[in-house]
Amino acid sequence: LPETRNKFKVWMYKIWEFAKEDINRVTFSLKVGLAVLLVSLLILFQAPYQVFSTSIIWSILTVAIMFEYTVGATFHKGFNRVLGSLFAGVLAIAIAELALMSGPVAEPIIIGISIFIIGSVTSFMKLWPTFVPYEYGFRVILFTYCLIIVSGYRSGNPIRTSIERLYSIAIGAIIAIAVNTLIFPIWAGEQLHKELVKSFNSVADSLEECVNKYLSNDGSDHSEFTNTLMDEFPDEPQYKKCRSTLNSSAKLESLALSAKWEPPHGRFRHLFYPWSEYVKVGAVLRYCAYEVMALHGVLHSEIQAPYNLRSIFETEISEATNKAADLIRCLGKDICDMKQTIKSTLVRSVRSSSERLQRAIETHAYLLASSYQLSDHNSSIPLPINGFSKSNQLAEFKRENEEEGEMNSQRILSVSWESTAALSLATFTSLLIEFVARLDHLVEAVHHLSQMAKFQHENLNIFLL
Amino acid sequence: LPETRNKFKVWMYKIWEFAKEDINRVTFSLKVGLAVLLVSLLILFQAPYQVFSTSIIWSILTVAIMFEYTVGATFHKGFNRVLGSLFAGVLAIAIAELALMSGPVAEPIIIGISIFIIGSVTSFMKLWPTFVPYEYGFRVILFTYCLIIVSGYRSGNPIRTSIERLYSIAIGAIIAIAVNTLIFPIWAGEQLHKELVKSFNSVADSLEECVNKYLSNDGSDHSEFTNTLMDEFPDEPQYKKCRSTLNSSAKLESLALSAKWEPPHGRFRHLFYPWSEYVKVGAVLRYCAYEVMALHGVLHSEIQAPYNLRSIFETEISEATNKAADLIRCLGKDICDMKQTIKSTLVRSVRSSSERLQRAIETHAYLLASSYQLSDHNSSIPLPINGFSKSNQLAEFKRENEEEGEMNSQRILSVSWESTAALSLATFTSLLIEFVARLDHLVEAVHHLSQMAKFQHENLNIFLL
Repeated sequence: LPETRNKFKVWMYKIWEFAKEDINRVTFSLKVGLAVLLVSLLILFQAPYQVFSTSIIWSILTVAIMFEYTVGATFHKGFNRVLGSLFAGVLAIAIAELALMSGPVAEPIIIGISIFIIGSVTSFMKLWPTFVPYEYGFRVILFTYCLIIVSGYRSGNPIRTSIERLYSIAIGAIIAIAVNTLIFPIWAGEQLHKELVKSFNSVADSLEECVNKYLSNDGSDHSEFTNTLMDEFPDEPQYKKCRSTLNSSAKLESLALSAKWEPPHGRFRHLFYPWSEYVKVGAVLRYCAYEVMALHGVLHSEIQAPYNLRSIFETEISEATNKAADLIRCLGKDICDMKQTIKSTLVRSVRSSSERLQRAIETHAYLLASSYQLSDHNSSIPLPINGFSKSNQLAEFKRENEEEGEMNSQRILSVSWESTAALSLATFTSLLIEFVARLDHLVEAVHHLSQMAKFQHENLNIFLL
Repeated sequence: LPETRNKFKVWMYKIWEFAKEDINRVTFSLKVGLAVLLVSLLILFQAPYQVFSTSIIWSILTVAIMFEYTVGATFHKGFNRVLGSLFAGVLAIAIAELALMSGPVAEPIIIGISIFIIGSVTSFMKLWPTFVPYEYGFRVILFTYCLIIVSGYRSGNPIRTSIERLYSIAIGAIIAIAVNTLIFPIWAGEQLHKELVKSFNSVADSLEECVNKYLSNDGSDHSEFTNTLMDEFPDEPQYKKCRSTLNSSAKLESLALSAKWEPPHGRFRHLFYPWSEYVKVGAVLRYCAYEVMALHGVLHSEIQAPYNLRSIFETEISEATNKAADLIRCLGKDICDMKQTIKSTLVRSVRSSSERLQRAIETHAYLLASSYQLSDHNSSIPLPINGFSKSNQLAEFKRENEEEGEMNSQRILSVSWESTAALSLATFTSLLIEFVARLDHLVEAVHHLSQMAKFQHENLNIFLL
């Protein structure tokens, strides 16, 4: 018994944490409860029930189906439902009148054929790429049409049936929208805004995490990788976030779609707020995140540059990384605060740190090809580090693991060459430099967004000083 | 008028093409039409209508809402609907009886409070990550509960109301499932199978396209990139496909979720077919595709290795690429044909071509750092190519474009260093080698899938020869 109680406690605690993590979840749940209660009152009380009669149950259905998490999504679904119902209602009345006129024998045949056609056509149309977001609307057309025409056929009064249904749907829609919009509204725009800012931070965090690990990694946990599941690194929490940024395109797009339906609200005060620009900035950020994934790939690749070689470039690499991460965070913060700040100082410092890294590579380029020099050419270039033969060690490690076999599952353990091992560092730095180059596009995209969305100018007085 | 007719023709042609592209789209549409027609016949004919009376309209709603594209999705939605309705029905009867017993004053209060609680609790539960796939089920619970308890309150007989509703839902569900399963069924498993095979081919195609372009690229269309929209390369159709592979995780997951509901069918004959393994193979393939994205990044990066330098490694690079692409296609074909073939020859040839590429880099490593040697050390290493100064040209091109400015939108055009330009080739080859290394994991994942799914062994007689 105490065990069950303990389990129950753990469970309650989890639920409590889940609710605390995002208080909107609780708000949303209570709002749904309120909306269905309000619509049920129309039946529970005698007076409204006498006015609306049984067709009011359609309002309940409408509330339960229309009520979505965000205001925009509710509007979007309501639009689908109302327009779909209207269209289906008008069509149903027209066909029903036509069927009525054609006599009692032809009537059910005409109705049956029309149902088949409407079912086929709406189902085909909702597969069309442009109409995919309105999938629900086509579903509404289909069942509203069937319901009206079929119950109209039985009651013999299709117009009354369809009008009753339409106003009860309208009542449900009004209650759903009123509760959703007026009581603690959850705006899709706000969510989109936060989601984008979060993506900026996770790319910056993930970049720093990856580079820090690369610089501190002494190759000891290298073999571990091949045993763990692909793409799962328990000690790299930020990597997971960055990867989820890569998969966030669908989420951003659906939030932007919902946000377009929302009236100006909160901080987003002007009409036609450029929500689609958020999606574009998200795409450019994703484009930068691909480089982080590639950096991460080098961090976990089979062929590794010796640690001593990495440490030569440590200062430059970590400087460029920190500057780049700062710039990304600064861009994220600007979006978060809806401000336009002058980022030229930061941009210039990112640029110069990237140049410094390139110069360092330039100066020490011979190191990256030095093992060749040592073994074949005996050139006189001095080696400033003593542990440089570590790459040979790594190569031996590789050769040890290499086996000949027939099975498919066998690994292709490539022979590690000294130069290739050293060049892996070149790869890492090139990717980092490419990442910095891509930040241009990000700066540009954010600048474009901030102009379209009329973010406030800040630090303008710096020009005057 | 002839213009309108022309437009109409173009439009009809597009629809025709869309239907021809995947004939299942037409099948699906006609099946929906048939299902709603069948359920409507229950009302249109006098005999069944007298048995079922008006509550039969719930069958129409059920068919329209339950009918999904694939068999698995229909089962999944039907399960949600039926279980949700059952649960809501039982709960509603219990609460309604309780309310009835508590007298006419307390009855509407108890009903109202119960509606509020059910609304809040189901809405909160459907946000819980584990329950997200069953979102629709919670919605069904909510509106079925409200409908039954409210109309039960008015009719004074909640048990009869709920039983009527349940059997009409059951009729709708049976019709939807029968039509979906028995007439030209569209299996989610089959779709998932095809989708995965398609991803294999698009990664292979995209790799070849990218490498071919890298080897044939003379830098002339380089500046074009900076003007076009990020991530949009009209002349690289395969790149787009590969990128869509990266975003396909949600699609694969939802197909696998649906496929789990399907009975054994067609080629997938044994029970508990490992559909979730498909998702895992998809994840490993995506992991390989990240490297293709990185290769693509080098192809379009600002700092480029001179063309002449690339041509030195052309044979090795294209050999490794073709071998790797062959292996991927072969893995894809094995999945497609559901066979286990011995891939050791192919794996070995991929391995050896990757080694040859590494050896080539090893041998010519001095070239990758040679501009440094030339300018500062005057080393005696011979330069076998005459146009090697092209990298200087590129660097000048960069310096020309470089400007000092204050605006945020301004590009950070980094100074291109000769070594860095040459090292960009090292980056490209390293990424290619890393890609090949990752194929291990892919071979392993496919092997695991083929064992779990009991693919047929082939070429076993090779062992005997």
